[in-house]
Amino acid sequence: MTTFNQPLGGNEMPRFGGPATMMRLPTQATAEGLDACFVGIPLDVGTSNRPGTRLGPRQIRQESCMLRPYNMATGAAPFEHLQVADIGDVAINTFDLKKTVDIITEAYHKILAHNCIPLTLGGDHTLTYPILRAIAKKHGPVALIHVDAHADINDEMFGEKIAHGTPFRRAFDDGLLNNDKVFQIGLRGTGYSPEDFNWARSQGWTVIQAEECWGKSLKPMIDDIRAKIGDTPVYLTYDIDSLDPAFAPGTGTVEIGGLTTWQALEIIRGCAGLNLVGCDLVEVSPPFDPSGNTALIGANLLYEMLCVLPGVKR
Amino acid sequence: MTTFNQPLGGNEMPRFGGPATMMRLPTQATAEGLDACFVGIPLDVGTSNRPGTRLGPRQIRQESCMLRPYNMATGAAPFEHLQVADIGDVAINTFDLKKTVDIITEAYHKILAHNCIPLTLGGDHTLTYPILRAIAKKHGPVALIHVDAHADINDEMFGEKIAHGTPFRRAFDDGLLNNDKVFQIGLRGTGYSPEDFNWARSQGWTVIQAEECWGKSLKPMIDDIRAKIGDTPVYLTYDIDSLDPAFAPGTGTVEIGGLTTWQALEIIRGCAGLNLVGCDLVEVSPPFDPSGNTALIGANLLYEMLCVLPGVKR
Amino acid sequence: MTTFNQPLGGNEMPRFGGPATMMRLPTQATAEGLDACFVGIPLDVGTSNRPGTRLGPRQIRQESCMLRPYNMATGAAPFEHLQVADIGDVAINTFDLKKTVDIITEAYHKILAHNCIPLTLGGDHTLTYPILRAIAKKHGPVALIHVDAHADINDEMFGEKIAHGTPFRRAFDDGLLNNDKVFQIGLRGTGYSPEDFNWARSQGWTVIQAEECWGKSLKPMIDDIRAKIGDTPVYLTYDIDSLDPAFAPGTGTVEIGGLTTWQALEIIRGCAGLNLVGCDLVEVSPPFDPSGNTALIGANLLYEMLCVLPGVKR
Amino acid sequence: MTTFNQPLGGNEMPRFGGPATMMRLPTQATAEGLDACFVGIPLDVGTSNRPGTRLGPRQIRQESCMLRPYNMATGAAPFEHLQVADIGDVAINTFDLKKTVDIITEAYHKILAHNCIPLTLGGDHTLTYPILRAIAKKHGPVALIHVDAHADINDEMFGEKIAHGTPFRRAFDDGLLNNDKVFQIGLRGTGYSPEDFNWARSQGWTVIQAEECWGKSLKPMIDDIRAKIGDTPVYLTYDIDSLDPAFAPGTGTVEIGGLTTWQALEIIRGCAGLNLVGCDLVEVSPPFDPSGNTALIGANLLYEMLCVLPGVKR
Amino acid sequence: MTTFNQPLGGNEMPRFGGPATMMRLPTQATAEGLDACFVGIPLDVGTSNRPGTRLGPRQIRQESCMLRPYNMATGAAPFEHLQVADIGDVAINTFDLKKTVDIITEAYHKILAHNCIPLTLGGDHTLTYPILRAIAKKHGPVALIHVDAHADINDEMFGEKIAHGTPFRRAFDDGLLNNDKVFQIGLRGTGYSPEDFNWARSQGWTVIQAEECWGKSLKPMIDDIRAKIGDTPVYLTYDIDSLDPAFAPGTGTVEIGGLTTWQALEIIRGCAGLNLVGCDLVEVSPPFDPSGNTALIGANLLYEMLCVLPGVKR
Amino acid sequence: MTTFNQPLGGNEMPRFGGPATMMRLPTQATAEGLDACFVGIPLDVGTSNRPGTRLGPRQIRQESCMLRPYNMATGAAPFEHLQVADIGDVAINTFDLKKTVDIITEAYHKILAHNCIPLTLGGDHTLTYPILRAIAKKHGPVALIHVDAHADINDEMFGEKIAHGTPFRRAFDDGLLNNDKVFQIGLRGTGYSPEDFNWARSQGWTVIQAEECWGKSLKPMIDDIRAKIGDTPVYLTYDIDSLDPAFAPGTGTVEIGGLTTWQALEIIRGCAGLNLVGCDLVEVSPPFDPSGNTALIGANLLYEMLCVLPGVKR
Repeated sequence: MTTFNQPLGGNEMPRFGGPATMMRLPTQATAEGLDACFVGIPLDVGTSNRPGTRLGPRQIRQESCMLRPYNMATGAAPFEHLQVADIGDVAINTFDLKKTVDIITEAYHKILAHNCIPLTLGGDHTLTYPILRAIAKKHGPVALIHVDAHADINDEMFGEKIAHGTPFRRAFDDGLLNNDKVFQIGLRGTGYSPEDFNWARSQGWTVIQAEECWGKSLKPMIDDIRAKIGDTPVYLTYDIDSLDPAFAPGTGTVEIGGLTTWQALEIIRGCAGLNLVGCDLVEVSPPFDPSGNTALIGANLLYEMLCVLPGVKR
Repeated sequence: MTTFNQPLGGNEMPRFGGPATMMRLPTQATAEGLDACFVGIPLDVGTSNRPGTRLGPRQIRQESCMLRPYNMATGAAPFEHLQVADIGDVAINTFDLKKTVDIITEAYHKILAHNCIPLTLGGDHTLTYPILRAIAKKHGPVALIHVDAHADINDEMFGEKIAHGTPFRRAFDDGLLNNDKVFQIGLRGTGYSPEDFNWARSQGWTVIQAEECWGKSLKPMIDDIRAKIGDTPVYLTYDIDSLDPAFAPGTGTVEIGGLTTWQALEIIRGCAGLNLVGCDLVEVSPPFDPSGNTALIGANLLYEMLCVLPGVKR
Repeated sequence: MTTFNQPLGGNEMPRFGGPATMMRLPTQATAEGLDACFVGIPLDVGTSNRPGTRLGPRQIRQESCMLRPYNMATGAAPFEHLQVADIGDVAINTFDLKKTVDIITEAYHKILAHNCIPLTLGGDHTLTYPILRAIAKKHGPVALIHVDAHADINDEMFGEKIAHGTPFRRAFDDGLLNNDKVFQIGLRGTGYSPEDFNWARSQGWTVIQAEECWGKSLKPMIDDIRAKIGDTPVYLTYDIDSLDPAFAPGTGTVEIGGLTTWQALEIIRGCAGLNLVGCDLVEVSPPFDPSGNTALIGANLLYEMLCVLPGVKR
Repeated sequence: MTTFNQPLGGNEMPRFGGPATMMRLPTQATAEGLDACFVGIPLDVGTSNRPGTRLGPRQIRQESCMLRPYNMATGAAPFEHLQVADIGDVAINTFDLKKTVDIITEAYHKILAHNCIPLTLGGDHTLTYPILRAIAKKHGPVALIHVDAHADINDEMFGEKIAHGTPFRRAFDDGLLNNDKVFQIGLRGTGYSPEDFNWARSQGWTVIQAEECWGKSLKPMIDDIRAKIGDTPVYLTYDIDSLDPAFAPGTGTVEIGGLTTWQALEIIRGCAGLNLVGCDLVEVSPPFDPSGNTALIGANLLYEMLCVLPGVKR
Repeated sequence: MTTFNQPLGGNEMPRFGGPATMMRLPTQATAEGLDACFVGIPLDVGTSNRPGTRLGPRQIRQESCMLRPYNMATGAAPFEHLQVADIGDVAINTFDLKKTVDIITEAYHKILAHNCIPLTLGGDHTLTYPILRAIAKKHGPVALIHVDAHADINDEMFGEKIAHGTPFRRAFDDGLLNNDKVFQIGLRGTGYSPEDFNWARSQGWTVIQAEECWGKSLKPMIDDIRAKIGDTPVYLTYDIDSLDPAFAPGTGTVEIGGLTTWQALEIIRGCAGLNLVGCDLVEVSPPFDPSGNTALIGANLLYEMLCVLPGVKR
Repeated sequence: MTTFNQPLGGNEMPRFGGPATMMRLPTQATAEGLDACFVGIPLDVGTSNRPGTRLGPRQIRQESCMLRPYNMATGAAPFEHLQVADIGDVAINTFDLKKTVDIITEAYHKILAHNCIPLTLGGDHTLTYPILRAIAKKHGPVALIHVDAHADINDEMFGEKIAHGTPFRRAFDDGLLNNDKVFQIGLRGTGYSPEDFNWARSQGWTVIQAEECWGKSLKPMIDDIRAKIGDTPVYLTYDIDSLDPAFAPGTGTVEIGGLTTWQALEIIRGCAGLNLVGCDLVEVSPPFDPSGNTALIGANLLYEMLCVLPGVKR
């Protein structure tokens, strides 16, 4: 008999009603007793172009109302194996990005203290840096799977160390990453010089540009990555702008020629078997998403992340 | 010292984060212990033109996040005097309108059994009929203040007795109304014959067409209504399409030449002192409300209704 | 017993279905046998700023589906007194504005030959000039009630004689107007010099700027106009941008500080008793009207025009 | 010399004008004398998530205005071989889903009595069940090609037998299908258990999940299906949500990782040679389709269905 | 002969083309030689609810393309009397609000050093504080006309001194204001306590709540204010959310029951004769303004401000 | 040391601020001294279905603000090798399409007189004909790479020789093309007869229908084209509707089943090494592009064109 929290079903409450929590799951104030949690970070003051990701967590939750418990493609039934809840949003300081970074790290220390795996609803990509600080404090330097249109390894933006284009440079500086096991997938577009991608390569990171992905199944690629990571603790950070804007128009720093949703699903489903210690889905910007479907993709990808967490059988 | 529930403040959590409940209030499963409750009915299968009101409760809650506890215009501080919570949505049967009507009445019997005043987030106007059945069972036939572009007194629509254009005819048929104290405000547009409005007049109801309201303060009108109702239990039903579509584009059966928001505020604020036993705000259709402001008006008007409930001092 | 065409009713076909004709009336290919007709001119190549009025007739028809036969405010029942149909669109040449002007005049000669009063769904304001040529050929120089944000009396635009800012100058040049009985209502905004409005005044036309209308009932104004026109044949041309953009966002040359819909209704309803020989509603631009409500206002105002045609009793 | 109805051409009337019928074809009240007809069912009260498909027929017709008579890819010229018209919408009862189901069946009995093949503009997927009842009465149990994100084989939804998630279960229960020749293509997403897809398999149906389609030409698949069906009468039901939401955002129950439009074209074009006895295109929801392109895809797919009807040569 | 910069006219370049500067005026890098300048501040990291004002300057410029040089209502011809240009945007640091405040003050010191009056395109309301610092350094404490839905006098927001809800408290703290001559117009909505408005009153400021403005001409009010200010240097700050959201939906902290555009025009036109030393128009948020009309209102109001600057004759 | 114009960088001015020129480059009034220029033609009066391309140049510039100077995929650094500026828009006559055609030719004679390569921001496809007249006068008949959903080779539209469906027929008639080296890629959809595509083939042109492109890398195709063209002067005209509407919803004559952005990038990048003498990107219609991403694709493709101009090394 299942004793875990279950998403509220469509036969109990119409899908357009009920609580606007992630998957219409129960909420609780802390991560206590949870194997995994959904947590929002309504942040957009780290964005450099279009704003709006502050509204991402709210919209992702709203568009998650269609999600049912069983994964028809993979056979995963996460709510049979894990206790999961939505623990709400981190109370960031929207007027001070630097203070927000510390608020986030502090909040994740508390989540991790409960041995709960956080699945984060962003918010702009700045947030991955403070999460990684908490993750690395618990798990040591981690492997990283980073799916994105951008490398996000600037040393500074407009003279600032903290912004949505710098999180992985900061993580590197702080020694939070296992540099042999960092994979950046989907990078593309315009830059200032070849160093925009090559700096990462020179640290030992693997960079897979979008052009290498076009028109292909990415199963072989993720199989290879999974083999290289082995059982090292690994963090998965998924920037929705890795997708081509045809799929995910609602984001702030759009680059054409991106991944498809079926490639995104291949990547995340291919993470099954990894020792995932945290995941995030960032950069959904509802004001540029009139149909709501970018948030809906975000909700689906977060569900797929849940389906590949350690402990979820198939 | 206040011991009542308070809306989550902007200094505790950014307004674009936190729970997507009405005014970011706490939720509870029943009305037990509450003086008043916000409750949603995600209904649109009673609509006759544009759909979408099923998404009304969710959107009204979302747009309510800006609301602070104190009413700067009237001095009302409802959370100093009443225990209020959001009790979620009624689990309607979206595939069967007739069954839904009974589900709603049943749900309101339970709310009223707790001596809690329901403030309903609609949903299409069909819902007022089943609410009135529950209200009248507890309070007897009630006075009615009905603000709307339409009379909603059809005997049938497409041969059906239950639809969003019939609730007040059904309420009349069931003897739920105190016919000397029924006030319909804002009616206008096109119809089939003079009887569309005159049937109501012939039952003793007072009909104030929109043309009588143009360019005027409605304070004298509502003062007069208040005097006529006295201390009779009264139900307030507010159809957002009473407003001109300039103010409230996001609704399904739009009629031009309507009320302004300042007139709406005058009406609701003018209800202070009445023996209100229930209120609803209906017909917000988010798919036709790209800015979200129709739902935002709905949220504000529901707050204003809360501010005039019995027991709220100024 | 009524033998006239009737709008398809909501009890016969849901309002969101059925033919996408004006008011869901029957169509016919010519004006033969009709007292009045709705006719579309899908023109926008005369516009000088935002485009889109070519889609106006289609959208006005679509949004007219809510209109019922009886006018609740005035008691007019036009389908009891007039034979009305939708005769479709004029097949303009969208690649050549000058040829289009002649196509329109030719089409209206044919309509008028049937002694049918045309109610035109625009389309940009260029179209009123070729209509007036046909009207004046039949009726001689006419009185004009012109509600608009702009005077549309430029001698040229970008060196051209034909454009949506010149129709009334052209009509003047061709002697189509009874200059003592020309009324321009709602003018405002920015211009090149005082002559932009004063040229009209110097021809004997009456110009009522929007500022004179703010916050007032316009009944006295239209009563006065009606008295001055008497039984002279009169043409009514209504530019939707006369309305404040709060009411009518979906138009191309927006000016703030405009009329309200209740003032628009006062003006048109105040035309009852005039010898109206034609009417148009122009400048609805659906691409800038996400809710569809600008077209819906257009549909309502066209219906109100129908209600004040000669022969419609109250 | 062609004597069949032809779509109104762009050289006779600008494409943004003219009648808002399917392909700007003539209308007629019944199917008499027609080989095939376009018919709308403005239904959305069977939907379980976002509403809006009631507006589908109207919007599909509007977006069909660009369609010319000749298929550049396949060489089909349907209007050289078939008499086709738009027979308008079925007058459903939007307040009672169960009655609507009977209204639809009755309407299709009449269409089929004229030996006319119906091409249906939906409307939510509930409508396929009552159509199949009429189809099977005339043709006996039919083969089925069902392209969709969902299996739509629930026994009940919220306790109801009739809803947009149950039509093929009801068709099975009523013996309307040739179970050896039922093909479900594009299924994916989340569910309640493996039975959500496997029930169909256990009845002998062929289920092809979306994952099997990713990145492939579907010509071999449809060639194989065509061979298996042979000359059995077959019904084609196409749910627009089978497409990935990148292509078709305007629908109500969105699932990521779907088909592409080129795969959709391969499927439908691959039906040439089958004994098609009816087709539908369902679940277009205009309020979630701000560009109109989902309806435009719907219009194109309906045209492609027409191009593969029996009797259309290439 | 005029030797001043002129807006690019519609007869030289179609209004939908040409440079996307304010009123299609010439640009220059500094304020040198200018009597007045338009200057943008693309700031939204001070906002507390919906974001997007960072895109305000760009959108206001785009929607200003319709503006012609002559004011038809007042007869002002500002380009006959003043040398005006668009000097572009202030290069703010979007990742650090506190640094941005200093960047702005520094930029305005430079503008003011050229004896040029700045007309600022916001951006969120935080920006008025750093502008006032520069203004007061040049002119001493100034009178203030502040039109807004909110008082913006919080001492802190989320513990921060700098945010869009604090600028006038900071200005007070720094002694930048002539407290006898501060006028706040249009305030309304919800708050935390009566002190939200009364703190201002206790400093000697005049607070005119929106309710006092409803349904009235505001000419008497602004005449009275003008008399009280006399020839004291005065700064005019106009928050677009002072308008009712019917007029200005595209803003972030929406309050219902606001001013009309005709009242806004009365206020600004009523400032003619004052010793205006600077003006701003803030809080236009294009992502919530699908028609573009909120930005268009902003552009018009900025033009009207230009028309009442000292030196512009009528 | 670089002495060429550079795009304004994100570390100097936030990307959401600064001049709304292409890539935030400097502007100049003529092409003097430039190797290449961006130039806009705000034309839509040649369109036959949805309007709006007149707003294309403005929106493409706005969405170009994210573009950085270096091409991460190809290594091209165009601003290291070419002097580039934005020379603004051609002052077309929007009321007369035929005059506009001559205005455009005249404007391009002037650009070409400076030996500057024009990169044109459209505007509807009519504009390519007058550009080709100027191009051919300088370079003689040119090779043509034409990417589009439509052949645009009608002899007439609605009886007119000049429209957006005729430019390549007119170019053929005037002898502007090297008929052995004309390549039309991406054609599809419906037409009037096989001649719609075969006329081109009968002139020696190569027509590659979209169906031939589905699911394939287009590198081999463009390699082959490049070989065939050799060093003949070649003009590249890119109609955004060649892309599937999933990618580029914001256009006027939408055809499903189109190219992907990765195919578009392959085509343009594959032009490196050709003797390109001019390029255009046409048919972006912002009113049908609510996210702005169609214009953003347009901006990216124009940048990619710049990257393959003669003289840009890798």
